[in-house]
Amino acid sequence: MATPGSGFWSFGSEEGSGDAENHGTAKAWCQAAQKFTGGIGTKLCALLYGDGEKSMETGAKDDLGSAEKTPACTCNNKPCSCQKADINYAFLHSTDLLPACNGEITTLSFLQDVMDILLQYVVKSFDRSTKVIDFHYPNELLQEYNWELTDQPQTLEEILLNCRTTLKYAIKTGHPRYFNQLSTGLDMVGLAADWLTSTANTNMFTYEIAPVFVLLEYVTLRKMREMIGWPGGCGDGIFSPGGAISNMYAMLIARFKMFPEVKEKGMAAIPRLLAFTSEHSHFSVKKGAAALGIGTDSVILIRCDERGKMIPSDLERRIMEAKQKGFVPFLVSATAGTTVYGAFDPLLAIADICKKYKIWMHVDAAWGGGLLMSRKHKWKLNGVERANSVTWNPHKMMGVPLQCSALLVREEGLMQSCNQMHASYLFQQDKHYDLSYDTGDKALQCGRHVDVFKLWLMWRAKGTTGFEAQIDKCLELAEYLYNKIKNREGYEMVFDGKPQHTNVCFWYVPPSLRNMEDNEERMNRLLKVAPVIKARMMEYGTTMVSYQPLGDKVNFFRMVISNPAASHQDIDFLIEEIERLGQDL
Amino acid sequence: MATPGSGFWSFGSEEGSGDAENHGTAKAWCQAAQKFTGGIGTKLCALLYGDGEKSMETGAKDDLGSAEKTPACTCNNKPCSCQKADINYAFLHSTDLLPACNGEITTLSFLQDVMDILLQYVVKSFDRSTKVIDFHYPNELLQEYNWELTDQPQTLEEILLNCRTTLKYAIKTGHPRYFNQLSTGLDMVGLAADWLTSTANTNMFTYEIAPVFVLLEYVTLRKMREMIGWPGGCGDGIFSPGGAISNMYAMLIARFKMFPEVKEKGMAAIPRLLAFTSEHSHFSVKKGAAALGIGTDSVILIRCDERGKMIPSDLERRIMEAKQKGFVPFLVSATAGTTVYGAFDPLLAIADICKKYKIWMHVDAAWGGGLLMSRKHKWKLNGVERANSVTWNPHKMMGVPLQCSALLVREEGLMQSCNQMHASYLFQQDKHYDLSYDTGDKALQCGRHVDVFKLWLMWRAKGTTGFEAQIDKCLELAEYLYNKIKNREGYEMVFDGKPQHTNVCFWYVPPSLRNMEDNEERMNRLLKVAPVIKARMMEYGTTMVSYQPLGDKVNFFRMVISNPAASHQDIDFLIEEIERLGQDL
Repeated sequence: MATPGSGFWSFGSEEGSGDAENHGTAKAWCQAAQKFTGGIGTKLCALLYGDGEKSMETGAKDDLGSAEKTPACTCNNKPCSCQKADINYAFLHSTDLLPACNGEITTLSFLQDVMDILLQYVVKSFDRSTKVIDFHYPNELLQEYNWELTDQPQTLEEILLNCRTTLKYAIKTGHPRYFNQLSTGLDMVGLAADWLTSTANTNMFTYEIAPVFVLLEYVTLRKMREMIGWPGGCGDGIFSPGGAISNMYAMLIARFKMFPEVKEKGMAAIPRLLAFTSEHSHFSVKKGAAALGIGTDSVILIRCDERGKMIPSDLERRIMEAKQKGFVPFLVSATAGTTVYGAFDPLLAIADICKKYKIWMHVDAAWGGGLLMSRKHKWKLNGVERANSVTWNPHKMMGVPLQCSALLVREEGLMQSCNQMHASYLFQQDKHYDLSYDTGDKALQCGRHVDVFKLWLMWRAKGTTGFEAQIDKCLELAEYLYNKIKNREGYEMVFDGKPQHTNVCFWYVPPSLRNMEDNEERMNRLLKVAPVIKARMMEYGTTMVSYQPLGDKVNFFRMVISNPAASHQDIDFLIEEIERLGQDL
Repeated sequence: MATPGSGFWSFGSEEGSGDAENHGTAKAWCQAAQKFTGGIGTKLCALLYGDGEKSMETGAKDDLGSAEKTPACTCNNKPCSCQKADINYAFLHSTDLLPACNGEITTLSFLQDVMDILLQYVVKSFDRSTKVIDFHYPNELLQEYNWELTDQPQTLEEILLNCRTTLKYAIKTGHPRYFNQLSTGLDMVGLAADWLTSTANTNMFTYEIAPVFVLLEYVTLRKMREMIGWPGGCGDGIFSPGGAISNMYAMLIARFKMFPEVKEKGMAAIPRLLAFTSEHSHFSVKKGAAALGIGTDSVILIRCDERGKMIPSDLERRIMEAKQKGFVPFLVSATAGTTVYGAFDPLLAIADICKKYKIWMHVDAAWGGGLLMSRKHKWKLNGVERANSVTWNPHKMMGVPLQCSALLVREEGLMQSCNQMHASYLFQQDKHYDLSYDTGDKALQCGRHVDVFKLWLMWRAKGTTGFEAQIDKCLELAEYLYNKIKNREGYEMVFDGKPQHTNVCFWYVPPSLRNMEDNEERMNRLLKVAPVIKARMMEYGTTMVSYQPLGDKVNFFRMVISNPAASHQDIDFLIEEIERLGQDL
């Protein structure tokens, strides 16, 4: 149940009131608060009025409003918080919030109470004694609560309850033992920045409506290009809604660069194109090819070595083969940090091949890009500076809240030529400021969410060195895990050697399988182990880690660490938990 | 400047302390607060511990931490807020926040102080006495503040200052006099929901990591399909990053429906396709065609009547023409609510033509979809129920925070077939729950932001009837504006008759042009009027409204109202302001 008036402002508590005889009355609260604090009322007024601004022209009387429900007070603070203690959300609706006439107090109180719910969730997220997940099957969850949408409004009390219930069943993605995805953790500055972004509620297409954010995108993308190693940070780029879309952009731009006529004439007017990527690359390369009318058959999967790295000689062979058949190789998408193995393709060798055959080199560093922040680990991306485009998702290894994905392009202006449609109703050419800041027409999107601010603010708060420390720590933890299990009874590594990224891939082999011959029966039993352990993890809610098959390798665990909250003890816990949940299998 | 400790918890103010002799010491604050309130400390502990949960295993000692900076207190509340009064952000960094050991107090205090900044901005946003924008040219804004990213971290004090500065130069998109875009306003429940979404920080691809949000997407999309009029709300859909991407999805699915082999074989394997849309339609239809390898030349623009509605006879003529030339018409994208005129294409007539020629009918109701919530206005979309797909952006007319765009598809399963790539590392087939809830593979994106919660929570708070009231009010205001200016001296309407949506398009003709002949010179002067008035509006910061040319019509104002905060007085103000700023031109 939502407790009405449970915010930080609610003073009229059951015990210990400094003014017992007036307890519970709004006036008493108002006076007492001012006596004690120099004025919570003053504080609220400062919030309402800002820094020294004085009056506030309230909404016209014909606005949606509820003036009757919040009668005027006679204290000296206008508007004052005297009614706060009287707020009963059971009788209030969203129409009582701003822009309702006299809606300030109710609004601030409501938002503060939502914030209390969120702060409580934040603290719990980091608490190892709480569950990562309170798991319910879909049909159970549908029955657990009434989630339906109806004609009639709910009260604000019910709205607060909705918030609590939603978070009750949410996954605590910031929990130190949540390892399920490449994006884990909950960064406090990033969270604050995302709240601010929501509050500013604008759109990235023009400087006109997002002046600061447009400039911050410019500053941040330039800095990212510097980290990649492009001279002076020159080039182009955009924040896009996720790595899959960033990779699709790269493919789109590569095609346009080679055959600009494709924009008007379509694929019908150009030769048959081929793209190359490794068999361990992300599925978005094929997804992009399907969408762009290139077709998945035109994505050639290059063989990988046992560590999941693209084999350059196989790439060159397939390129030559394609050319002999009259196809046009237009794109190589190398991967820096594959999804499952965390492998880094040999970018220098791939760059040489791309140069030799004049092919656009894209690097999908969605997962591995973060290592560019680390002096110790960035060598793994050597050669990325020779790429024509790079996907880099700060929402993964850098812990920026979802979503934050950048596509960086070495050649300036290409994105604009490729995507612009010159809509005169959005990009007027006779505005009074420098139109080079109206960057919206280089995007596939029209409206575009502000994804830059959380990255920018986190970068300010941590500095590059702070990101470095965070990332180095995650890699150190992965090595700790690897060292602990590589020779431990009951574990088999999926590939040999120290992990290059934080991906540690392994099978847990329960005692019953340990002495079995390595035959089909064993495989058939082994492939069921990880799913069962995972299901149990979720039902207990103690931790979450991903598993999958890959090629001829049956289901194995893929542990990844991108959560700065994780510690050695959490790694130890994971091992113990896998053994606890899997020993009877 | 950020004021350290300026949150709601900061009590040790300069005046009126109830315990003057201990003023300023942490202990005094702690005791006094408990005496007065029954415990702000208790409140904080409740936040920290949640509902009755007791202990909290703090992070391992090897974590990033700052235990030295927050020494243990001897009061009875563990962890307590006694140090709050001592928090000096000038000496603290992001590494002092959670997951830092003993980081709870600092974290809660910091987040609360960020929240205070946001609440102040929210209140100001609705205050008509504040500016909509504090405009600075890009080069000024770059010099106004140091926005650069560096190696070294900033203090939390500087981070709070960054937040204040960012908001200082932001556009107040919730301001009652901000009319610049189709998305305006700041809904309090939507904002709260977006904060919650940020805090939950998860991803839409699987039920596993977003159980509640996946279910809410299911519930909400079904409800939207019901509003469209598809029996039982059956069908499919997705929330996508904006209307342009939603329209691109429609084109992608329409192509796949007709030629499923395109997914593997690409455009080379299928005949030359043609899409049809009106000359007033959104530029994203062409943008999508360019991206998908169809080419912009294959988008045929159908003529509109004087109100901006597609002329069905012209559509049919162009379809027949295309077929005669051997092209394959595969998509008609009708518009319900055009960007500039707010026109509704005649959907019933278009549906008949699509049926006759077996063409996919898409309705881009990004802007007009909201009218489906209104019993008074939904007739304008009659025929939408016959569409194969519909784009509907609740972030426009329904005032949901950015971004919230839905693509609805009548045929179930088609999106999945079109886009799925079966990545085994994401969509494992041997999970322990009903896999039909792992809907991520029907998206073009891999990671996908949670855009549904803010719409769902607003719908719960308002009910359908609340959205209806809000939308009806905006339409009523548009009519009010139209009635005020249609015969007013100095105004010329761009098209005759009452607006069908909230778009009111007009020229303001300054006195110097009123008696001029309607010749080229007048046009050349008139086209400069709106840009100058707009530039002045932004420099004064009093209001913002969009202008653009269209076809042979020179720059005119396009007023739109989607902001529930706007009132009759704001419309009056706009008219006065245009006249004030334009009378000398």
